[in-house]
Amino acid sequence: MKFYKQKNPKSSLIAETDGSYYNLTAARSRVKELKELFRASELSGIKLSDLTEQIIYEEGTPNVNLLPDQLEIPFSPDEVWAAGVTYKISEEARQRESEMSEIYLDIYESKRPELFLKATPSRVVGPNDPIGVREDSEWNVPEPELGLVLYKDELIGYTVGNDVSSRSIEGSNPLYLPQAKVYNRSCAIGPSFLYSDQLEPYNFEISMEILRDGISVYEGLTSTNQLNRSFDELIEYMSKSNILNDLTVLLTGTSLVPPDEFDLKDGDVVNITIEGIGTLTNPVVSV
Amino acid sequence: MKFYKQKNPKSSLIAETDGSYYNLTAARSRVKELKELFRASELSGIKLSDLTEQIIYEEGTPNVNLLPDQLEIPFSPDEVWAAGVTYKISEEARQRESEMSEIYLDIYESKRPELFLKATPSRVVGPNDPIGVREDSEWNVPEPELGLVLYKDELIGYTVGNDVSSRSIEGSNPLYLPQAKVYNRSCAIGPSFLYSDQLEPYNFEISMEILRDGISVYEGLTSTNQLNRSFDELIEYMSKSNILNDLTVLLTGTSLVPPDEFDLKDGDVVNITIEGIGTLTNPVVSV
Amino acid sequence: MKFYKQKNPKSSLIAETDGSYYNLTAARSRVKELKELFRASELSGIKLSDLTEQIIYEEGTPNVNLLPDQLEIPFSPDEVWAAGVTYKISEEARQRESEMSEIYLDIYESKRPELFLKATPSRVVGPNDPIGVREDSEWNVPEPELGLVLYKDELIGYTVGNDVSSRSIEGSNPLYLPQAKVYNRSCAIGPSFLYSDQLEPYNFEISMEILRDGISVYEGLTSTNQLNRSFDELIEYMSKSNILNDLTVLLTGTSLVPPDEFDLKDGDVVNITIEGIGTLTNPVVSV
Amino acid sequence: MKFYKQKNPKSSLIAETDGSYYNLTAARSRVKELKELFRASELSGIKLSDLTEQIIYEEGTPNVNLLPDQLEIPFSPDEVWAAGVTYKISEEARQRESEMSEIYLDIYESKRPELFLKATPSRVVGPNDPIGVREDSEWNVPEPELGLVLYKDELIGYTVGNDVSSRSIEGSNPLYLPQAKVYNRSCAIGPSFLYSDQLEPYNFEISMEILRDGISVYEGLTSTNQLNRSFDELIEYMSKSNILNDLTVLLTGTSLVPPDEFDLKDGDVVNITIEGIGTLTNPVVSV
Repeated sequence: MKFYKQKNPKSSLIAETDGSYYNLTAARSRVKELKELFRASELSGIKLSDLTEQIIYEEGTPNVNLLPDQLEIPFSPDEVWAAGVTYKISEEARQRESEMSEIYLDIYESKRPELFLKATPSRVVGPNDPIGVREDSEWNVPEPELGLVLYKDELIGYTVGNDVSSRSIEGSNPLYLPQAKVYNRSCAIGPSFLYSDQLEPYNFEISMEILRDGISVYEGLTSTNQLNRSFDELIEYMSKSNILNDLTVLLTGTSLVPPDEFDLKDGDVVNITIEGIGTLTNPVVSV
Repeated sequence: MKFYKQKNPKSSLIAETDGSYYNLTAARSRVKELKELFRASELSGIKLSDLTEQIIYEEGTPNVNLLPDQLEIPFSPDEVWAAGVTYKISEEARQRESEMSEIYLDIYESKRPELFLKATPSRVVGPNDPIGVREDSEWNVPEPELGLVLYKDELIGYTVGNDVSSRSIEGSNPLYLPQAKVYNRSCAIGPSFLYSDQLEPYNFEISMEILRDGISVYEGLTSTNQLNRSFDELIEYMSKSNILNDLTVLLTGTSLVPPDEFDLKDGDVVNITIEGIGTLTNPVVSV
Repeated sequence: MKFYKQKNPKSSLIAETDGSYYNLTAARSRVKELKELFRASELSGIKLSDLTEQIIYEEGTPNVNLLPDQLEIPFSPDEVWAAGVTYKISEEARQRESEMSEIYLDIYESKRPELFLKATPSRVVGPNDPIGVREDSEWNVPEPELGLVLYKDELIGYTVGNDVSSRSIEGSNPLYLPQAKVYNRSCAIGPSFLYSDQLEPYNFEISMEILRDGISVYEGLTSTNQLNRSFDELIEYMSKSNILNDLTVLLTGTSLVPPDEFDLKDGDVVNITIEGIGTLTNPVVSV
Repeated sequence: MKFYKQKNPKSSLIAETDGSYYNLTAARSRVKELKELFRASELSGIKLSDLTEQIIYEEGTPNVNLLPDQLEIPFSPDEVWAAGVTYKISEEARQRESEMSEIYLDIYESKRPELFLKATPSRVVGPNDPIGVREDSEWNVPEPELGLVLYKDELIGYTVGNDVSSRSIEGSNPLYLPQAKVYNRSCAIGPSFLYSDQLEPYNFEISMEILRDGISVYEGLTSTNQLNRSFDELIEYMSKSNILNDLTVLLTGTSLVPPDEFDLKDGDVVNITIEGIGTLTNPVVSV
C-alpha cells in the first residue's frame, strides 16, 4: 500500500491500493497526515494497511485521481539521516582508488558504517520542488537512494530519496562532509510512502535519469541487492546512544555515480525511480 | 545584560542588569521566552537591552533571587552548529602531529573552516541537566566553547557551550565525525544568554574544571584571543547556501583539551566558566 | 473504565480498570492525552476500553497509586455547553412560581430545550482548582450536573460538572443569562472521564455537599432518573446548525438547588459526587 | 492606518497608509499576523502605526494592490462577544412594544448592559465567506455592528461585524438567546482592522444593503452617535469577573433592523459598510 499527499483537493492524504486512489482526508474521520495513521496503528496494534483499508471501506472514502505534478512531500520527517559507502565496491574500483580514498575503503571494511545527520525539516523538499546545488561548490551531484522510514525506532516502510551533495567540498577534506551534505534544499524525498511488512527490501531496483534542456544527459540503474550493509546494521548504528524522533528517514547510500566530469547544474531535472515506490522528480536550482 | 530561565517561580524568564534580577514573566506583559523579545526588538528597531529596561522600569517588574541550581536552558535554539580547529596551534604541537592529523592541519590552513550541524533541540540540555558520553565509545571529552547566538542571520549575543565528543570514534575515521558529535545529550548550553552589541568578543576568558567524586581532575584556562578564525568568517561560512532558522547557536571551537589519558565518565561533573556569562555545570551520564 | 490525569508523576494519564490504576503515559507508547485514545479508537474501530486494555496488558504498563489531591482536569474540552430546566418540576413547585418564571415554565413545556455555551477552555478548571463566584453578584450557587462527553458528535462517556452561576444576575433579567454563566472559573469538570458504551445513563445518583469552615452547610441528593429530557434530545438540539469541535462537554442541568438563602462564598468547598465517576472537589474564590 | 489579510500573494498581511498598500509579509521581518505587531507594540511601547511605518519605510516593504474579492479575515479573534439593546429607542418605538419586550426595555434602562459570548474561532468567518442562517429558524436577520477590537483588555481599534441572528428563536423565549446567536457561521468580521488612538468613535456611519438575486431588498443607515451606551461601559461590564483572551472583538449592538416581514435567506448577499473601515460582504447559506 502506498500513500501520497496532493495539493488538490487541498492538501489531501491519498492511499493507493489495488490500483485505486482514495482520499483519506475526505473520509469521515478526515485523516490529514500519515503520522495520525502511524499513531493509531501503534496504539491499536492493527497493521497500517488493515487500518487504512478499514477506513477506505467502512467510511465511504471517495476515489480521486492521482495528479503527479500536484504531489507534495508525503510526510514530513523530523530528521533525515544518511549513510555512505554502503554498496559493494568492485576489485577493479578499489585498484583505482587514490590515497585520499583510503578513508572510504577503511569505512568499507569497518564494522561501523558511515552515518550522518543529513537534513532537518526546513532543508527537505518533496516531489517537484527544486533541490539545491551550492553556489560555492564547483562539483555537485545527486545521490539516488532508497529511504527507510522509521516510526520511533521501527522500520515501517520506504520512500525514494535524493542526497544532493557537493563532491568538491567533500573531496577537499573529509571533515567538510557536513558542509557538503547539509545546506538549503539538499534533500528530497517522495513521491510516495510505501508501507510494507513483507517486502524483500534487497530487491529494489533504483534508476536515475538527469535531463538538461530536456535531453537525457545521464542514465543509470542499480539494485539494493548490491548493498554491502544490511538495513538492520544501519538502523542499529544510527540508534546507538541516539534517541530518534517520531519520524526519521534513513537514506541508505548510493551506488549510481555519474562520471567525474558530470556536474549537476541549475535548470537540470533529476528523476529517480524505485520500482514499487515511484519516480521522484526535482528541478535543480543554485542556492 | 544577561537573561536566564529559572524553574521557580514556574519557568520564569529573568533579566540581570546592574546586579539585580527581574522576573519578566511576572511583568505586566508576561514575557515567557527570549524569542518574544528578539522579535519585538527586530520589529521595533529598539535594542534588546533598552526594550528590556523599558519593561523592567515601566511595568513594575518584580525582583527575584537567582537560584543557580534551579536554572533551565535560557532559550531553545532551533539548531546548534559547531566549528573545529579554530584556535591557534603552536609550532611545537604541529611537529607532534601524526599523519592522520594532516586532515586537521589542512583545515587549519584552508580558507574554509570546519563546520557541522552539532545538535537539534532534542539533543541539547541546559544547566544542571546531564550531558551524555556514548556507551560505544572508549574515549570521551567535553569541549568548552564560546557560543555565538544568532537571531535569523544576525549575531545578537553569547552563551557557554559544551560540545561533548567521542574522541575514539572521530579518531578512527574522520567520516565518523557526525557520529562522534551528534547523539543523545551531546550538547549543553547556558547558564545565561549574554546580550551585547559592544563587547570585545575576542577577550572572553574560558575555563573548565572537571570533578570526579567531588575532586578536581582537570583544570584549564584559555581565551578567545587565541582564536585563529574570526566569528565573522565562521558565520559567513555557516550561512553560505544555508538558510538559518530563527535561533541558532554556533559553538566556536575549543582549545582546552584534557590530556590524552583523560576519559570523561558517567558521574563526572563538568564546570565551564566564561567570564561575563557564567558557569555551565553538567553532570555526566552514559547514554 | 475510568481515566484520570495526575500531576505526579508528571502529568500522567491513568486508566482504572478492575480496581487497578495504570499509568498510560509511562507505557511504551506514551499516551499523554485522552484525545490520542479517542482518535486511535475512531480510526481503528476498536472500543476505547479494549484499546486501553491492549495497551495495559501488552506494553507492560506500570501500576500507580491514585492520589486524589494530585488530580488534574482529565481532558481539556474545546467547549462546555450546558442545559437548563431539564429536571422534572413537581406540581407544587409550579404553583409557587412567580410571573417571572413563566419563562422557565415555558422552556419546561417546549420542545426546544434551553442550551447555552457555558465555557471555553480558559474558564474551565479541574479537580481541586478553585471555582469562582462573581464579585458583582450577590447570590451565587453551584450547580452539580452530569456531564456528557462528546467526541465530534458522538457520546463517548461521562464526567461530573459544576455549572457555577450567579442567581442574582440571571434573576434580574433572563437576557443576562450569559453573564450569569460565562465568567472566570465558572465551570469545573472531573475528577474522571467514565467511558461507557453500555451504562444505564438515567440511573446516575448525584449528590452535593457544601462545606463552610469545614462544616457541612448543604447536602442534597438526586438522580438522573428525575430528568425530563433525554440526552439524545439535548445532543440533537445542541448539534442543530452547529458544528461541534473535537471534544465537547454538555452539562445536563441541575435539580439540586440549595435553599434561597444560601449564597456560595469565597472559602467554601463544593463536593459533587456521581456514583461511578467520583467526587469533584473545588474550593471557591471570589473573581 | 488599516490592515488586511489577502489570499494572494499567499496569505499576506497588508497595511494601508496614505492611500498605498504595503505587504508586511513580504517585508524583511516577514510579519504574518497582526498579533505579532500587537505584541511588539506592547513590548516596545511604540504605537502600532509608528511601528508599522518603520517596517514599511526601513525594510523596503513592497507595494501591492488590494484585491477586495481576495480578502480574508484580517485577524483571528480568540472570542467574539456582543452587546444588545445599545442604541437609543424612540418614544414612539417604546409605545409600540408588547409585553414580551419589557425584558428589553428593562435592559435599556438598567445599569448592566446585555452582553453575551457570540462566537468562538470556528464560528467566525471573514469577508466573502458565507454567513449562515439556521435551518430550524423561520426568521433570520443580519445585524450590522461596529466591532471594538481589544488586545488583552485594551481597545486598540475597530472592525465591521455581522451578528447574524435567529429572531424567531430568540423571540419565542429570551432564554433561547444563546441558540439564536451561537451557531455555525453566525458571525462575520472584516474587511479590515482599523487602528486608531484618536478617532471620534461615536461618529462612525454604518450602512447595510441586502441583495436578493442581485437586487437591493433592504437599505439602511445609522450612526454610532445614536448609541445609548458608551464603549467604556460595555468593555467594563464584559471584563467584570472575566479574564479576556489576547484578542477579543466586542460587537456593539445594532440599530438597523429590516422590517418584520424581512427574512434573510440562502443566496442573499449582505453588504455592511462602516465609513473608514470598509465594506464587509458575505453571501448567505443555510446551515
